[in-house]
Amino acid sequence: MKKYCFGADIGGTTVKFGLFDSDGIVLEKWEIPTRTEQEGAAILPDMAASIREKIQEHGLNTDEIAGIGVDVPGPISEDGIVPHTANLGWGYKEVTRELSELTGLPCRAGNDANVAALGEMWLGGGKGYTNVLMITLGTGVGGGIVVNGKILTGAHGAGGEIGHIHVDDTIEECCGCGNKGCLEQFASATGIARLGREILEESDQPSIMRGQEMSAKLVFDSVKEGDELAIRTAEVFGQYLGKAVAGMTAVLDPEIIVIGGGVSKAGPVLLDYVRKYYRPCAFKSAKDTPFALAELGNDAGIYGCAKLILG
Amino acid sequence: MKKYCFGADIGGTTVKFGLFDSDGIVLEKWEIPTRTEQEGAAILPDMAASIREKIQEHGLNTDEIAGIGVDVPGPISEDGIVPHTANLGWGYKEVTRELSELTGLPCRAGNDANVAALGEMWLGGGKGYTNVLMITLGTGVGGGIVVNGKILTGAHGAGGEIGHIHVDDTIEECCGCGNKGCLEQFASATGIARLGREILEESDQPSIMRGQEMSAKLVFDSVKEGDELAIRTAEVFGQYLGKAVAGMTAVLDPEIIVIGGGVSKAGPVLLDYVRKYYRPCAFKSAKDTPFALAELGNDAGIYGCAKLILG
Repeated sequence: MKKYCFGADIGGTTVKFGLFDSDGIVLEKWEIPTRTEQEGAAILPDMAASIREKIQEHGLNTDEIAGIGVDVPGPISEDGIVPHTANLGWGYKEVTRELSELTGLPCRAGNDANVAALGEMWLGGGKGYTNVLMITLGTGVGGGIVVNGKILTGAHGAGGEIGHIHVDDTIEECCGCGNKGCLEQFASATGIARLGREILEESDQPSIMRGQEMSAKLVFDSVKEGDELAIRTAEVFGQYLGKAVAGMTAVLDPEIIVIGGGVSKAGPVLLDYVRKYYRPCAFKSAKDTPFALAELGNDAGIYGCAKLILG
Repeated sequence: MKKYCFGADIGGTTVKFGLFDSDGIVLEKWEIPTRTEQEGAAILPDMAASIREKIQEHGLNTDEIAGIGVDVPGPISEDGIVPHTANLGWGYKEVTRELSELTGLPCRAGNDANVAALGEMWLGGGKGYTNVLMITLGTGVGGGIVVNGKILTGAHGAGGEIGHIHVDDTIEECCGCGNKGCLEQFASATGIARLGREILEESDQPSIMRGQEMSAKLVFDSVKEGDELAIRTAEVFGQYLGKAVAGMTAVLDPEIIVIGGGVSKAGPVLLDYVRKYYRPCAFKSAKDTPFALAELGNDAGIYGCAKLILG
């Protein structure tokens, strides 16, 4: 019986680790810097050294370790190969094969947004379900889809790239992806701040947001104060996201929709604005599909990585 | 070694059957009427009798038969239970259990649109792939999603209900589902005919479509003749469907998109109009995802049913 596993969430600045027991109890969490110089050549060796150190510290026997789950900030195939991960410096890399050779342990890997969805399904906002649509509202908009307990990876590792659903024909600015009118341009922290600025500029109504640095947090904090222009901003955000989520549920018919990422710290009020526009556009059998807030925060990645191994 | 299986595609007026060998060669196809009176009580017994008859006719041994795959025109759970299937007269029904008891053979079941997608993946327009998005443009717009060779059923059996993706905020008529602005209202045979009528009414330009009964077929036939108003109709159809398909591929990242149903008989020209609006809105890794026309026509159901059994 394997008693332990490691989760390793590789980000552009740090690699977050967790040592888990087979019940999902995290025994220790730690992190190391992500050394992206020289095409990120040191990242996997650094990780292997850190894991070996923890194995020694805890006096573990490698026979007791089920493996290492890893996530990366970009597309990765089901067999753990990345074509190119810009913010790690990597070109083509066989992540799981290399890390497995470096550590002597079995490895599995996934994309960070997808793996976070798996973590939230296991022990977070989607606990108790096996069909989960997770939406991450951060600097961008990411997504992760879990179908019958398994990540939907997609043909190019781009399953769940819901931030790039086309939702608007009028915007003139380009999205980071090169297209125009992506959901990310209206529902990310950056997008909400832009909407807020536009609504302030177009109106001469008073607002507690005036004179402050615009952000998604400011918008939702001001909504809670009853600020009319903040409420107008939240309505526009809710329209774009609510209708898009309704479309996603017509495709996927999940059991639950989990919303996470920095923007979700606004709390239940955010879900109210999304649901308001979701319900009229959702297919009848999905109108009552529950929404939940993510619960694992920045730890969703390491939990999901552990779940990749524990299955 | 099981040598044979049956596929049974239950529709509102007929049940289509196929007897297949394990290579997917269809040995015989036939159909019987669907007797929907008295809450459709006779449907499964009629099917069982017809299958028993064929077993005798072909002198088959039941040990050689892997089972019966069935599809139904409505939501059905993964364990073969329908809550209610209006156009068969059924209320709650344990389809696979009942048919299995009536025939003594293992049964598996799925929703018709999903099973058709499985058939097209196996031996039709999606042959050679295991991740397929199938779109059926008929009286309505249906869909079927295959992920790693398995149907995406969804929590309420409504996976792939892509006809009800919200795509328009201005239409005043209701969709059959009760919402307004569903894809089906713009991309089904009915929807295309409505678009064609509106475009004829709004213009006083000449058109070969004038004075004829409007239909999706008339629109695409007239497109091939270079008729300007028909082309304008096809453009509007292409915009709605192309953008919606781009959104679906941002969610699913399939290997191939297969378009079937009566409207797809228009041929490659239809794909041209869809692709024109798909590409600018598709996420970068999905811009070159191939489109194909369905190949199995009305037989997609029985092929998919067989594949449910052959796995």
